[in-house]
Amino acid sequence: MTFNERKALVESQHEALLTKKNTPIEGNGIVCRYENPIITAEHAPLLWRYDYNPETNPYFMQRIGVNATLNSGAILIDGKFHLVVRTEGDDRKSFFAVASSDNGIDNFRFAERPITMPEAKVSPLAESPVPEATNVYDMRLTAHEDGWIYGLFCVERHDDSQKGNLSAATATCGIARTKDLVNWQRLDDLKSNSQQRNVVLHPEFVDGKYALYTRPQDGFIDAGSGGGIGWALVDDIEHAVVKEEKIINARHYHTIMEVKNGEGPHPFKTPKGWLHLAHGVRGCASGLRYVLYMYMTALDDPTRVIAQPAGAFMVPKDGEYIGDVMNVLFTNGWVAKPKTDVKGVLPGNAMHELDEEVFIYYASSDTRMHVATSTIGQLIDYCMNTPQDGLRTGKSVEAINALIDRNKALLAK
Amino acid sequence: MTFNERKALVESQHEALLTKKNTPIEGNGIVCRYENPIITAEHAPLLWRYDYNPETNPYFMQRIGVNATLNSGAILIDGKFHLVVRTEGDDRKSFFAVASSDNGIDNFRFAERPITMPEAKVSPLAESPVPEATNVYDMRLTAHEDGWIYGLFCVERHDDSQKGNLSAATATCGIARTKDLVNWQRLDDLKSNSQQRNVVLHPEFVDGKYALYTRPQDGFIDAGSGGGIGWALVDDIEHAVVKEEKIINARHYHTIMEVKNGEGPHPFKTPKGWLHLAHGVRGCASGLRYVLYMYMTALDDPTRVIAQPAGAFMVPKDGEYIGDVMNVLFTNGWVAKPKTDVKGVLPGNAMHELDEEVFIYYASSDTRMHVATSTIGQLIDYCMNTPQDGLRTGKSVEAINALIDRNKALLAK
Repeated sequence: MTFNERKALVESQHEALLTKKNTPIEGNGIVCRYENPIITAEHAPLLWRYDYNPETNPYFMQRIGVNATLNSGAILIDGKFHLVVRTEGDDRKSFFAVASSDNGIDNFRFAERPITMPEAKVSPLAESPVPEATNVYDMRLTAHEDGWIYGLFCVERHDDSQKGNLSAATATCGIARTKDLVNWQRLDDLKSNSQQRNVVLHPEFVDGKYALYTRPQDGFIDAGSGGGIGWALVDDIEHAVVKEEKIINARHYHTIMEVKNGEGPHPFKTPKGWLHLAHGVRGCASGLRYVLYMYMTALDDPTRVIAQPAGAFMVPKDGEYIGDVMNVLFTNGWVAKPKTDVKGVLPGNAMHELDEEVFIYYASSDTRMHVATSTIGQLIDYCMNTPQDGLRTGKSVEAINALIDRNKALLAK
Repeated sequence: MTFNERKALVESQHEALLTKKNTPIEGNGIVCRYENPIITAEHAPLLWRYDYNPETNPYFMQRIGVNATLNSGAILIDGKFHLVVRTEGDDRKSFFAVASSDNGIDNFRFAERPITMPEAKVSPLAESPVPEATNVYDMRLTAHEDGWIYGLFCVERHDDSQKGNLSAATATCGIARTKDLVNWQRLDDLKSNSQQRNVVLHPEFVDGKYALYTRPQDGFIDAGSGGGIGWALVDDIEHAVVKEEKIINARHYHTIMEVKNGEGPHPFKTPKGWLHLAHGVRGCASGLRYVLYMYMTALDDPTRVIAQPAGAFMVPKDGEYIGDVMNVLFTNGWVAKPKTDVKGVLPGNAMHELDEEVFIYYASSDTRMHVATSTIGQLIDYCMNTPQDGLRTGKSVEAINALIDRNKALLAK
């Protein structure tokens, strides 16, 4: 095949992938999955990957490979859906890149360039001067009521205190802010007594302070002996320090979050309370299993849980099971779309109505992005009316029998 | 179904599998995968597996099951492709068996019998008299310039120093040689201060000595604190001893070879340098992930790396992810086919021209064998012109931006 023949073939295959329609799959009534992933490694622009010069690339071979597109932050700007995609190269390093779509379920296209994220000047787990990040990933976007769009993400560096161990790493929360998703102002990394992954900025001030969902952990991978989803108030977001941290959503034995849990994107404000999406992790013979769950907290106290349905909200299905890290669903982005047009960015603490459609952006098995849709009303209904976890098998059977009894009485009428 | 009906059905299904055509899949331009695996457990001859006597096997049931066909050495003899297949029975023991094909991409057929590998007389990690091998696997074939075809492979025995631990094992490099792939002369196992897996014989003498690619490791599974692909010169291949060992291709934090790496088959000699194929391993929440990578070393010094593209050359795709050991690509055999006919065996240190087709034989998830094709010229181009690993996210974004800049300037013309 000549250079031009191969280029034409690659370009037509790429365009066909990018413009493929997505179709909903009817499910359990709570949430609706879609036929195709929305963003895959093959969605990465050809100009990032191929040298278009026939003299320096006579075979039209790929020069820089993209391996995976995963855990993405999400935001609606001028009615358009934007994801800040964790994009992983063949070299295993992740960076952030924006992909956008008009309808939020297909035709996602990456921006011309990936995000060039400035380095941190201050970082608690690193020497001064702060070494550059080895990896960055899993950005949570928050349009804070202060007017900025914040991105909080995990910054990974080698743990040089463990010289001989090439896998020893530290996880710190990086903080940056932007007005346009292109130009980012990097702030100090979060100061905390423990390693931090899955840190999320709450969209409104609490007692005049910035509020963070945290996930304190003992080591780089291990969530440790305590833990769960934490909560901390911060005086100065430009030099953020976790002084006091309380656990607002704890792990439990023999649940879907026995080993770890963490906040997903920031919660939505609804008339019934703050609506949360999170992930839970358990161990099994083939490693860790990551699933999604939901809970709600009180409007007047975002730390007080008022509803938590038992177990998983979404788990891997079919092809989602398979990928670079098997058996994983993960989410750090969702969008609720108001029925009326919104110019610019809706503040993250805007009140969402029951009829608003919700777009849940989740990655499967650390490999590709998917969307699932629902409404604010359905998700509240799910949280309020699904039985809570009884924490043992007998309670689970009782809950099923109670439902059967009610159904039989109803159907006998 | 009668004995004869079932026998006819099994035989016709087997013949259909063995004669199935394979078709290429257009990819990234560097390497071309094929639709079907080339050798599966079902390819094993029926005479190995079925008792054909209707009196002793009235149901025509399988008597000896083959579970998997994986990590295969490869060699071209009289223009025909031969793989020495790691063949694993239902009993989890591996042995070697030759499967051959005229075109290298389909119609592979096993020889009449598996290889009967003689036992070692001397082995460094075992008592004298040397206990027989519990398992043998992953043979690398080298047509050495001394005129022999060598097979180096891993020999596994229980580590009796750990009495109560049934999984405690030792890995030693076994060495054997042949002229015909049928009759093998077993030499002493490799003497080394550490356990050794993935040892490969370089095809030509270096300073008048045999040269080995090694992979020193602290324990049976663990590559330990040091390590990478090593290099050792050996005076006497019949009683091989590793005296000095130097690392020529090291592991790095946050790469596709953070946890382990190892040489694949022996490198090809090309006008631009020695062309190497290897595997890298990283850890993740679902276990270890094995991928393939490439590098080149200098013609005048096979230990000096002159090119190493960032990250992975090939990773598991689609069905390759799934198998007895998930998320694994592994290779220990490849063939470069000269444009002109070659009688007998081409010495492993023959110079390969840019237009020669390369057949990469790789196993997916420890279950079945595949082929991927490229050319010497394309693989050199890949090694020389893919950006090197910058070892941190910022450098990866810079490399992509530089490619975008060049492409934009070119396309604006």
